[in-house]
Amino acid sequence: MNVLVLHAHPEPRSLTSSLKNFAVSALERAGHEVRVSDLYAMKWKATLDIDDFPAHADGERLYPTQASGRAFATKQQAADVSAEQEKVIWADALILNFPLWWYGMPAILKGWFDRVWAAGWAYDVGRHGGSRWGIRFGEGTLQGKRALLVTTIGGRAPQYGPRGVNGHLDDLLFPLTHGCLFYPGIDVLPPLAFFSVGNRVSPADYEAMCARLQARLDTLATAAVTPFRPQNYGDYDASQVLLPHLSPAATGLSMHQRMHADPVPVIRSLSESLQLEGCAAEER
Amino acid sequence: MNVLVLHAHPEPRSLTSSLKNFAVSALERAGHEVRVSDLYAMKWKATLDIDDFPAHADGERLYPTQASGRAFATKQQAADVSAEQEKVIWADALILNFPLWWYGMPAILKGWFDRVWAAGWAYDVGRHGGSRWGIRFGEGTLQGKRALLVTTIGGRAPQYGPRGVNGHLDDLLFPLTHGCLFYPGIDVLPPLAFFSVGNRVSPADYEAMCARLQARLDTLATAAVTPFRPQNYGDYDASQVLLPHLSPAATGLSMHQRMHADPVPVIRSLSESLQLEGCAAEER
Repeated sequence: MNVLVLHAHPEPRSLTSSLKNFAVSALERAGHEVRVSDLYAMKWKATLDIDDFPAHADGERLYPTQASGRAFATKQQAADVSAEQEKVIWADALILNFPLWWYGMPAILKGWFDRVWAAGWAYDVGRHGGSRWGIRFGEGTLQGKRALLVTTIGGRAPQYGPRGVNGHLDDLLFPLTHGCLFYPGIDVLPPLAFFSVGNRVSPADYEAMCARLQARLDTLATAAVTPFRPQNYGDYDASQVLLPHLSPAATGLSMHQRMHADPVPVIRSLSESLQLEGCAAEER
Repeated sequence: MNVLVLHAHPEPRSLTSSLKNFAVSALERAGHEVRVSDLYAMKWKATLDIDDFPAHADGERLYPTQASGRAFATKQQAADVSAEQEKVIWADALILNFPLWWYGMPAILKGWFDRVWAAGWAYDVGRHGGSRWGIRFGEGTLQGKRALLVTTIGGRAPQYGPRGVNGHLDDLLFPLTHGCLFYPGIDVLPPLAFFSVGNRVSPADYEAMCARLQARLDTLATAAVTPFRPQNYGDYDASQVLLPHLSPAATGLSMHQRMHADPVPVIRSLSESLQLEGCAAEER
């Protein structure tokens, strides 16, 4: 497989960075091709702004979505943005490796999505409106790829459990797993979280962490993915609201995962979905 | 009241920026003192890195939490960080005004929290461990302050409703409302969201939006806040897991809000909490 490792930690000697190094070596040992986007080392520009759109006319008002779609369609994106898109297209799997800061991604990683996930590519694919809402959530440009989150967390595991005070980790990560990754079609593996990570990790603890990471890397291509419900396969009504008979007792974000009794849909390819919508692929 | 407006949009002529301007004028008309942190205009540094810690020794390994706590305690923080902290201390209320990008804050605003919310100030207050876990979630340095989120969203409202495909907006914002704001003690008002915001908003629609915003500004000091459960008042067990008899049927993040039947705790002041824990205030 081709694996892109997205890494976000400012200290190359940190635990999080060591886990990234371990993952890269382990993947290469297993015969995978690996590329790394080490966002801090690359001095990745975190903020989406007018400089992302070199063709934007001086003084013209910036509409971020419109500018993003135009820059993508006319191949006039910022060079660092298109370079990242090429890595994503190349990759069969993405590994996102980061410390959980304030219950989410470090800003530099959030800014990777803000800038790289262009309109017409990661979103605004297919026709929006009417009884459907475009091609997204399970279908999209990045269909067929997989992603694994590896995150280091200072807090203790029970505090991130289903009834823990911080909120369930799966729910805290939902804007990333479902909102950023599943949206353009990427299948998301259950996250690998390392809790109670302090300033010092003993060699034995580090070895145990690496073993857990190794096991997840070994099954990167085969492990069952989080069964998020695809948008366009009958689970949601025309307003994109989950039908009342599905996950009827769920009151939170877990309702957007299929339950064992639900039928598993066979997802169409992107080109099939576009044809069904009457959009020629070239129109994108 | 003193009101700090945190604003994050790259285009000064955008709808989001116009709403910020409207809010500032409305608040000033009502006699409030207003300060604005316009993050894009300030060229706010979004990424936490070693440059945030001017006293950090060359070549020394960076432990972000430790470095943050030391810089705060020794008054050696980056100047832009301490300037923002002073504004927050000055403020009775915070307004966060931003477009929802990929189901969360734009990176520049996430980076404001990553950098400004220092250890020993916004977190790591009080003693962690044993049967308690520090002073946070309802108690903390910023107790008594309120925050209102104002967010512009391209998608339609039903898609962000309790069973909408994007996830319920309250849940998507939980890492910010509960994780960033309630954590150091800030009371959070229900968010004001403007849905279906496209490139063009008619004058009539804009007027209606301003009226909704005005109504929320008029009640900034008085409106009922989101009743998140405080951590240290009997709702959570020693592992910080919600007791089974509270919100027993909830499966998602809404369980961390008190229900009508639950008693409303009287929150201690920060100094009382520190004394109860046996921490002298100077130790912080």
